Amino acid sequence: MKVDLNADMGEGFGPWKMGDDAGLLQIVTSANIACGAHAGDWDVMADTMRKAAAHGVGIGAHPGFADLQGFGRRPMAMSNESVGRLVAWQFGAARGVAATVGAEVRHLKLHGALANMASRDRDLARAAYGAALRVDAHVILLVLAGTEQEAAARELGADWAGEIFADRGYRDDATLIPRGTEGAMIDDPDAAAERMVRFVEAGAIIAASGHEIPAACDSICLHGDGPGAVAIAQAVRDALRGAGVALQPMAGRRA
Amino acid sequence: MKVDLNADMGEGFGPWKMGDDAGLLQIVTSANIACGAHAGDWDVMADTMRKAAAHGVGIGAHPGFADLQGFGRRPMAMSNESVGRLVAWQFGAARGVAATVGAEVRHLKLHGALANMASRDRDLARAAYGAALRVDAHVILLVLAGTEQEAAARELGADWAGEIFADRGYRDDATLIPRGTEGAMIDDPDAAAERMVRFVEAGAIIAASGHEIPAACDSICLHGDGPGAVAIAQAVRDALRGAGVALQPMAGRRA
Amino acid sequence: MKVDLNADMGEGFGPWKMGDDAGLLQIVTSANIACGAHAGDWDVMADTMRKAAAHGVGIGAHPGFADLQGFGRRPMAMSNESVGRLVAWQFGAARGVAATVGAEVRHLKLHGALANMASRDRDLARAAYGAALRVDAHVILLVLAGTEQEAAARELGADWAGEIFADRGYRDDATLIPRGTEGAMIDDPDAAAERMVRFVEAGAIIAASGHEIPAACDSICLHGDGPGAVAIAQAVRDALRGAGVALQPMAGRRA
Amino acid sequence: MKVDLNADMGEGFGPWKMGDDAGLLQIVTSANIACGAHAGDWDVMADTMRKAAAHGVGIGAHPGFADLQGFGRRPMAMSNESVGRLVAWQFGAARGVAATVGAEVRHLKLHGALANMASRDRDLARAAYGAALRVDAHVILLVLAGTEQEAAARELGADWAGEIFADRGYRDDATLIPRGTEGAMIDDPDAAAERMVRFVEAGAIIAASGHEIPAACDSICLHGDGPGAVAIAQAVRDALRGAGVALQPMAGRRA
Repeated sequence: MKVDLNADMGEGFGPWKMGDDAGLLQIVTSANIACGAHAGDWDVMADTMRKAAAHGVGIGAHPGFADLQGFGRRPMAMSNESVGRLVAWQFGAARGVAATVGAEVRHLKLHGALANMASRDRDLARAAYGAALRVDAHVILLVLAGTEQEAAARELGADWAGEIFADRGYRDDATLIPRGTEGAMIDDPDAAAERMVRFVEAGAIIAASGHEIPAACDSICLHGDGPGAVAIAQAVRDALRGAGVALQPMAGRRA
Repeated sequence: MKVDLNADMGEGFGPWKMGDDAGLLQIVTSANIACGAHAGDWDVMADTMRKAAAHGVGIGAHPGFADLQGFGRRPMAMSNESVGRLVAWQFGAARGVAATVGAEVRHLKLHGALANMASRDRDLARAAYGAALRVDAHVILLVLAGTEQEAAARELGADWAGEIFADRGYRDDATLIPRGTEGAMIDDPDAAAERMVRFVEAGAIIAASGHEIPAACDSICLHGDGPGAVAIAQAVRDALRGAGVALQPMAGRRA
Repeated sequence: MKVDLNADMGEGFGPWKMGDDAGLLQIVTSANIACGAHAGDWDVMADTMRKAAAHGVGIGAHPGFADLQGFGRRPMAMSNESVGRLVAWQFGAARGVAATVGAEVRHLKLHGALANMASRDRDLARAAYGAALRVDAHVILLVLAGTEQEAAARELGADWAGEIFADRGYRDDATLIPRGTEGAMIDDPDAAAERMVRFVEAGAIIAASGHEIPAACDSICLHGDGPGAVAIAQAVRDALRGAGVALQPMAGRRA
Repeated sequence: MKVDLNADMGEGFGPWKMGDDAGLLQIVTSANIACGAHAGDWDVMADTMRKAAAHGVGIGAHPGFADLQGFGRRPMAMSNESVGRLVAWQFGAARGVAATVGAEVRHLKLHGALANMASRDRDLARAAYGAALRVDAHVILLVLAGTEQEAAARELGADWAGEIFADRGYRDDATLIPRGTEGAMIDDPDAAAERMVRFVEAGAIIAASGHEIPAACDSICLHGDGPGAVAIAQAVRDALRGAGVALQPMAGRRA
């Protein structure tokens, strides 16, 4: 058994920092790196990529809406065609910067509002992923397991990997329990860690009810922001190692 | 004998247009396309690249400083390393967008203040070009003939092509006569056209004094802005054709 | 009888121009000037305000969403409180720039998607207008006649003026006939002009059906963009003058 | 005897934070608040202004170059006229946002590269300050004591206050010892505090050599960033109080 641990990184901009990238680089096996539209600039990107490569952490592009102030969290009304070009622009930019530090972009994960929208809208997801695949037919699409993101990646015949959340509760249909509802957040590091071992061993998302939904548990999303985030990340890593699960950068599935 | 005709294109942004791209596409053999930092966005880029490809016009990335309001014409104080990353970020972005329309980026030309600075500062030029070559070792660097840009491209062992201006007078040291000085601008289409035939036939820049400086006259820079710009472009094209000079996208020289 | 003629101006940014501001300044009595968020920068603003003042044209702030690429036409998800601050930030900025050219900002009109949203959402309109009134209690709010914009301005006890469109058809409930539907656009200058005389004389919006809806026909919106726009503007002006209607900058109504 | 303690605040943007504003608000008597060009957005501004007002801290506008990525620290080539408009645009915007929280902008301090340039270039300083005074003739200009900023404020007949640095060493001509040179930085809180008492009591800048240069020691610049910054701020405040110096928002001098 094996699994990937991913986290968003390189979310600073100019003089501003965000998250504990140095701490996360000790833990994760893949990094989703902002591309300059919602966060990240060429210097932040290059610096983050260089460090990720030095730690053997797989590098991913993390495109989002072009909205620095809103951090890509505000939905934007764009045509699917324009979204595809936006993703290609950022993915290309990430590949360009990666080349300057001798690194390679292995995967792509959508960010923020763009990710949310694509998880519910297969056409939008196809536009975004289709554009990325035209840039690099071998990029691994890191999709929210069980959503329209996954459906789109499968339809496109792409390499993809499924993502699950360490710190979020699931409903019986594999969607997340909405924030603000009981069970939405798993704040206890041990609880989060134990759940992840169970998900990976079962090859399934286990809902709050105990219901199991078979799912591609290929990569666990961790966070570097907020109190306790790195503690959860460490607990998840340690529990997985303890259970004999190999931690390594994601590989792609086909269809 | 052969020569390339290049022009800057895709310099709109969002709702704003600039220049007569449609007119230029009938004339030029290479297009320098803004990459989203000083002008151009992913939609403008994709649209311009698709049209260029449809006309058999060679596509180039045209990176500049990240300054929309100043259109990349204001010098910015950045380290050479950061400039390299900025160029790689834009070049990569251009390659990404080109992929979505099935096109390829063949060359790279620096824009505005960045180009001016690189024409006088070999280290800066090396940083910019070196980064571009790490993104694509085969990209053709379109350099201002006889400047530090050319020197840097030679030192890097890159493919490069030399650029000359149809509408600017030269001094005996191959530098441009400063704007505002007599002879700086060649406004007459026939005069501009006749000069370009002489430059290309001589393989030399011919200064206002008549002095000839051997130079790589590989590509002639034309403009789509301002009164008479397209008229000059047409006159240059027609005169070159009349003189039996083949017009085709630039090829790269080595060293 | 009197009426104001207004148009959006100062919609360039950096090197980019938009619309025929010089032509419109010969015709209109009020100018809505972009404030730097969706268009306009401090130089464009100052230049436009100076010219407007020189022509005796009333100056208005024209705040929109902070989205240059989308020109403020894309809806953005912001809290009402944040929208209020955005409007105050732009209105204040406009007042600041106006002071540098010895001009005064008399009115305020919302732009693009923000205007559309505020015409349907009274709370949003109140947030935007309430913030503007805290900046200047005497500013005239130029509202889309008969919409939630007008309702909000009335509730706030503000000075306001009602706006009607020269080139758009109306339905029986005073809303616009949607673009793409028959009767949506009034392209014929004479037809547009004759309608405006009738609206102003009747003090009512006259729907495509002939139905009259009493309305505050205080200011007629003209455009400077697109083929025929200035021709319509001239025709409207000439017809109103011919009918003995005085053309002058809007005055505010109370409640 | 009295003195003002000022610090830059509200230097976040969108999701990003900077500095310990909460800690500084317990110490300072004036806050220089970024206006949205190099840092700060309307929400950050409103939030910072509301808190400053609640603490009885005087509010100032802190305009800088429009360069988020470079945080306004990179020199930009702009005409003096355009700089004036830039300052008026930001000052007006700050006044607009202040109005929404019932606060008032009392002073104005230039930021970063713009401040550096204005400290050496009287014409630039006059352009910036002159524009600010057209927006509000009573604004207090917080100038770097003994520089061209002060000379410009005097020439304009403005209200102004002189600023000195707690943590920087001075040369005999009242300029700062360049960073990287011995004596440039005063890192010890007690040493910084003791110096400030001496400066205020002497009404003079005391250079590293012991040389005294009579100067308007009206406001002491403190920082909220970096290790030990708040400790220095506290030590300065405590030492001044201990010496019987009243701490209160700056008042303006004339000529």
